[in-house]
Amino acid sequence: MERHMTELAPPARLLLGAGPANPHPRVLRAMTASLLGHLDPDFLQIMDDVRAMLRLTFKTSNTITLPVSGTGTAGMEASLVNVLEAGDTLVVAANGYFCQRLVDIGSRIGANVVTVTHSYGQVVDVGRVRDELRRLPRVKALAMVHAETSTGVLSPVREMAEVAHEAGALLIVDAVTSLGGSELRIDDWGVDICYSATQKCLACPPGLSPITMSDRAVEAMEGRQSPVVSFYFDLTKLRQYWHERAYHHTAPISMIYALREGLRILLEEGLEQSWRRHELHGAALRAGVQALGLSLLAPEGHRLPSLTAIRVPDGISDAPVKRHLLTKHNVEISAGLGEQAGKLWRVGLMGYNSSPSTVFTFLSAFEDALQANDYEVAVGASVAAAQRVYAGRATAD
Amino acid sequence: MERHMTELAPPARLLLGAGPANPHPRVLRAMTASLLGHLDPDFLQIMDDVRAMLRLTFKTSNTITLPVSGTGTAGMEASLVNVLEAGDTLVVAANGYFCQRLVDIGSRIGANVVTVTHSYGQVVDVGRVRDELRRLPRVKALAMVHAETSTGVLSPVREMAEVAHEAGALLIVDAVTSLGGSELRIDDWGVDICYSATQKCLACPPGLSPITMSDRAVEAMEGRQSPVVSFYFDLTKLRQYWHERAYHHTAPISMIYALREGLRILLEEGLEQSWRRHELHGAALRAGVQALGLSLLAPEGHRLPSLTAIRVPDGISDAPVKRHLLTKHNVEISAGLGEQAGKLWRVGLMGYNSSPSTVFTFLSAFEDALQANDYEVAVGASVAAAQRVYAGRATAD
Repeated sequence: MERHMTELAPPARLLLGAGPANPHPRVLRAMTASLLGHLDPDFLQIMDDVRAMLRLTFKTSNTITLPVSGTGTAGMEASLVNVLEAGDTLVVAANGYFCQRLVDIGSRIGANVVTVTHSYGQVVDVGRVRDELRRLPRVKALAMVHAETSTGVLSPVREMAEVAHEAGALLIVDAVTSLGGSELRIDDWGVDICYSATQKCLACPPGLSPITMSDRAVEAMEGRQSPVVSFYFDLTKLRQYWHERAYHHTAPISMIYALREGLRILLEEGLEQSWRRHELHGAALRAGVQALGLSLLAPEGHRLPSLTAIRVPDGISDAPVKRHLLTKHNVEISAGLGEQAGKLWRVGLMGYNSSPSTVFTFLSAFEDALQANDYEVAVGASVAAAQRVYAGRATAD
Repeated sequence: MERHMTELAPPARLLLGAGPANPHPRVLRAMTASLLGHLDPDFLQIMDDVRAMLRLTFKTSNTITLPVSGTGTAGMEASLVNVLEAGDTLVVAANGYFCQRLVDIGSRIGANVVTVTHSYGQVVDVGRVRDELRRLPRVKALAMVHAETSTGVLSPVREMAEVAHEAGALLIVDAVTSLGGSELRIDDWGVDICYSATQKCLACPPGLSPITMSDRAVEAMEGRQSPVVSFYFDLTKLRQYWHERAYHHTAPISMIYALREGLRILLEEGLEQSWRRHELHGAALRAGVQALGLSLLAPEGHRLPSLTAIRVPDGISDAPVKRHLLTKHNVEISAGLGEQAGKLWRVGLMGYNSSPSTVFTFLSAFEDALQANDYEVAVGASVAAAQRVYAGRATAD
């Protein structure tokens, strides 16, 4: 029999890379619920539920708060393409791989993209960004990544919003790896456009990109001179579908079921409690890794709970360790990206995977993988360090 | 409790509208398989399976044959945006609602869009299109809809390919409602770009848009002067992910599981057998509807098996019949779109829903809905007519 005709039987991996994470079992079950049409009155109610829960999760009252029908990069593209026109100036505070993607997309639209470059692993320097914005004649938008998945760095959003607004610019925030897992307050912090993805801290499979847009951003969108170059990502049309029920495209119904269930699980736990949970398990993981004598790329105080970037030490290479984890332990982690390719192991603890069992499994398997690659570690040291964090006898950093 | 916190419990509808159709139960189950990372070696094999089966389904050997991570409109946008640049001429053979969408997307890119307008329900007039192409100095692409979901009309593809190539233009074909359900031969017929969707004759939920691209189309893409305006839909980048395994975006893993299972079910049956099955049940449905004295929008010989557009007769309005079917029988059908709004009932028999039980259920419920709205019909006449088709004692048209 040809391979493609065999039964689908993927191995059961523990997904501790940069995402997707393992979805919550209830989310997988929700996807199999009876399919509805995209204009069915019962589906329209489900859409309303999703909008209501996304507003609670983004901490916003923004009217335009909905999932774009694509993965995280679709949300990034939708964010830029709806407010930027050819010739507009976009400033990107670039401190990692996904910031470069913002630059790429902005350039394709024909925007004048100005990059405030930081090296991978640096926190965004608000002062430098402010100086750049003051120097430029007219900036349409400032874009940043809240939680850089390529480096494990969490950058300040509220201060960046102040800097953007002082310059009359919109603040666009990538919250792909932070939404649901780290403190994020769209309205209080003054974020104008924020997008995320379902496969990280929201405990769903990949497939949707939640987005929210302030009144100020809507005004910019409505005041544009040229049509939005994308029909699929045109938020004026998407708003008509999500609010006024006018057909635009066939929504990915099963994915929206998944998102509804993922958000419901998040709100059952409590959003703030989910932030604290991610912080706790992130701290336990970091304590464990550091107890092995390894160091982290992100500076203390700016470490992302949902993703930890571990520097590959001298005397060992990244790929065999990653492969050992995958083949011997069914544990997936991610490699470095861009200028950090080959230099990092990136470990995600996102959504359903942010739990003690995951931390213990990873640390135990990681010790084994290091030793199997002739890198000596004090066996059990990492698990013991994590246990101390859980017992309240230590904090990681 | 707030509504959004209640259990997800959509009603079990029979989806006989313009799509989505009910997915095959095996497809729903496939979506819950253990999630893999988008670069996992086991997932890369699954991607290869999907590519292999899409080639068989499109009847092509095209290298670029993959699912775009969005619904049908995403495939439409990807098809246009990768080959067209601002100033290029696009000719659209427009005979329905989705043709107008091709015009909209082409215009946003900045193409010079020339429309060969037909009224809703007409088959594309190849002669008129040929004349238009001969008149125009230089045409980059000719776009058409194979199976117009808004009218139930099937238009000739092979002849259109000849016309396009005579003018040195690419032929772009929308096969959203035909792939898997009607004869379609990408290579034999000379189609350059074709896109479809998963939620119709492929028996999957909505969420992916399979696309295929001939060498000639790839050449046009590679020869362009300006970058593709969309990063998310950039097929050069998507090819790198699907072929060379270079990260581009996080694929919607569970939807790709669904597509793999849907394609496998299709190929187990046999593609040609699936075409014949759609033809048979479409014929039975049309016989039943006509036995009630109702008429069809599409002309004889050009009726789409997967979608039948029934003219709403005088003395009755469309919405109450549609509502009666939904609320009393849990059967969804679609209304008319665009210039046919209020004038049509559109009934889909797609993929898993192309079956005798579906035909009998619809016709029985439809008779009931017509009578409940004071439109007299000969009770049982439609079911009897369908039975005659199944018994080989009649053909519909």
